[in-house]
Amino acid sequence: MSPAVPPPIDPPARLLMGPGPITADPRVLRAMSAQLVGQYDPAMTAYMAETQELYRGVFRTRNDATLLVDGTSRAGIEAALVSLLAPGDRVLVPIFGRFGHLLREIAERCGAEVHVIEREWGTVFTAAEIEATLAEVRPKLLAVVHGDTSTTVAQPLEELGALAAKHGALLYTDTTASLGGNEFCADEWGVDVATAGLQKCLGGPSGSAPITLSEAAVAVVRGRTSVEAGIRSAGDPVNPDPIRSNYFDLGQILAYWGPQRLNHHTEATTMLYGARECARLVLEEGLDARIERHRVHGAAMTAGLVGLGLDLFGDQSVRMHNVVGVRIPDGIDGDAARAALLADYGIEIGTSFGPLHGKVWRVGVMGYNARRDTVLTTLAALEQMLRRGGVAVRAGAGVDAALESYAA
Amino acid sequence: MSPAVPPPIDPPARLLMGPGPITADPRVLRAMSAQLVGQYDPAMTAYMAETQELYRGVFRTRNDATLLVDGTSRAGIEAALVSLLAPGDRVLVPIFGRFGHLLREIAERCGAEVHVIEREWGTVFTAAEIEATLAEVRPKLLAVVHGDTSTTVAQPLEELGALAAKHGALLYTDTTASLGGNEFCADEWGVDVATAGLQKCLGGPSGSAPITLSEAAVAVVRGRTSVEAGIRSAGDPVNPDPIRSNYFDLGQILAYWGPQRLNHHTEATTMLYGARECARLVLEEGLDARIERHRVHGAAMTAGLVGLGLDLFGDQSVRMHNVVGVRIPDGIDGDAARAALLADYGIEIGTSFGPLHGKVWRVGVMGYNARRDTVLTTLAALEQMLRRGGVAVRAGAGVDAALESYAA
Repeated sequence: MSPAVPPPIDPPARLLMGPGPITADPRVLRAMSAQLVGQYDPAMTAYMAETQELYRGVFRTRNDATLLVDGTSRAGIEAALVSLLAPGDRVLVPIFGRFGHLLREIAERCGAEVHVIEREWGTVFTAAEIEATLAEVRPKLLAVVHGDTSTTVAQPLEELGALAAKHGALLYTDTTASLGGNEFCADEWGVDVATAGLQKCLGGPSGSAPITLSEAAVAVVRGRTSVEAGIRSAGDPVNPDPIRSNYFDLGQILAYWGPQRLNHHTEATTMLYGARECARLVLEEGLDARIERHRVHGAAMTAGLVGLGLDLFGDQSVRMHNVVGVRIPDGIDGDAARAALLADYGIEIGTSFGPLHGKVWRVGVMGYNARRDTVLTTLAALEQMLRRGGVAVRAGAGVDAALESYAA
Repeated sequence: MSPAVPPPIDPPARLLMGPGPITADPRVLRAMSAQLVGQYDPAMTAYMAETQELYRGVFRTRNDATLLVDGTSRAGIEAALVSLLAPGDRVLVPIFGRFGHLLREIAERCGAEVHVIEREWGTVFTAAEIEATLAEVRPKLLAVVHGDTSTTVAQPLEELGALAAKHGALLYTDTTASLGGNEFCADEWGVDVATAGLQKCLGGPSGSAPITLSEAAVAVVRGRTSVEAGIRSAGDPVNPDPIRSNYFDLGQILAYWGPQRLNHHTEATTMLYGARECARLVLEEGLDARIERHRVHGAAMTAGLVGLGLDLFGDQSVRMHNVVGVRIPDGIDGDAARAALLADYGIEIGTSFGPLHGKVWRVGVMGYNARRDTVLTTLAALEQMLRRGGVAVRAGAGVDAALESYAA
């Protein structure tokens, strides 16, 4: 048929130490190699229920409405926003990096009335700044990124749930970059909706978006839902002004995951197997232990990068455990150096977006790769890369500093 | 952390002979177990380019704009419709089954002005019927399902591209159920946009949606695209009335897959590995040979079901090769019988939606499971199931008829 059919996939060996995706935990890939079962097989619906319960543990919530959206982390964000925001609804988006811009962008496309406040990349807002704007704007929704990988820092959320509630708003947060490697407590912090992805601290591939919704958020969604023609039964809701998306209609998706088992999409079985294994491994390790592991190895990597003479980017007091930004030294072409690191050592570190492109590298220490051997190997290779790029580096400076951090 | 962490996934052995998802080709699952590489790794962008070229072969097109949407087949449909249809645009949807209703539903949520014609489930439209409505409605888009799994029949498309063009419309079709097991020629038939999924004749898991767009369709999309803030460069398009979805903005997705490599979502690497392997196996077998394999085994299954005394559902002259509908015999509880077949033989066959629920079973013969052993095993088990349900069946009647079909 085709003149040249390529051979099967055979990816090169890589150590992914960028801001994500990172090397998947082999146990997740093994789970994903399991054979399929039918969409309504008792085994499948049992796996779905287990996956829900596992993510309740990961999000630290008792929300019944805890499930997966079939798509990348961005799909989870859009499902949350398009399901919560009707055209004309007011939303407040505090922006402190690229992914805050994404929340604004998606909310605008939902037809919402979007209000933003912005801060310099690498910093975060005080609760008082956000409260002042909440009082002024009085939005239906406060939508804020938790950890913005683009800047490595995380917006403290502890007080925002109560502040949003005080001003009559729901709180949505995007935890794609932070969940599983940094403290996050959906219920204790009063978060109404949180979404995530697998490809960061959860140690899986991109393609499935865990989401959790409070009862208040579910009430908003249910008030907007409409069951599609072709599978509608007597008594099913029909809304003349439905959620603008069918694929992301969380009302229908909840009915698919719930006891009604309403037919919607065909669940992405293999991604569900992977998402389940990601959460299972988090809870098997223990969420506290996993967060501490990210803290320890992230701190060692940070110490090592400083030891190599690199300047850190961003407010370190609010830096995520799992990603470190460093300013690219003068005289080094950041992208060429990254390409050399990949070609010579098989190690990937990250570039940056927008105003930081060419100025900041981002080094990830997360999920399966939050380990001592990956930290030391990366620092050893970075030392060689900097030296060959003409930067004066004391031999062993990075590894020595990391080992001191581990010893402390 | 959690009191009871469940063990790793261990699905029961199943032979999936329903309308999909079906048992995945083990080679696809092996490809999906490969380790990840970075989003912009040269190996990854090479795999993306290979995947595009492979799907050009599967869709029989030279469209440059041939790629994957990260989600289930329904995500591909929504990406096509929301990217093509601006609010108020007219679309004509001929409905002959559940998935025609879905096209209407999604188009309505896009804000389009939706016109429909409907036919009884199990039948299809004549080209003349569709042309008459095209002339009357003069839509921007004719959106029609190719094979509607809900009814097992496929709308002939050979003439529709020319008719749509004659009346100034683009032609979109959903080939989820048909592609890879039935004749489909995007370019020769003048199809502007086609979408699919992996979980039917392509032999993979749900979760990735191949799509192809003609130059005319790309022109419509590009005219509506808008690059999001946070990654926008000078000269990038900013549209005051953008596509209503960011995740499904095919303009941005095309820029991600194209030489610009615009950052959008993080490609679902493992699903891409799987989608690539699905298409690779189609072309390695040869698309014509694969379609013929579906025809042969679908015909044998049909003969066997008739041999068992079951009445066929739907217009057999336009039935898809890969799925057969049969009326559930009087006195048999269709769902209880299916559950017994699953429990006793590990074999799954399908129920039906809407007006056909409880009246029609659907038996699939597709992808990896379009084989002689799966056909004969299923017929042998069905004979036992019917007999135990009190239906008079001549011993061996199903298998004998299938073997005669193979011999013919």
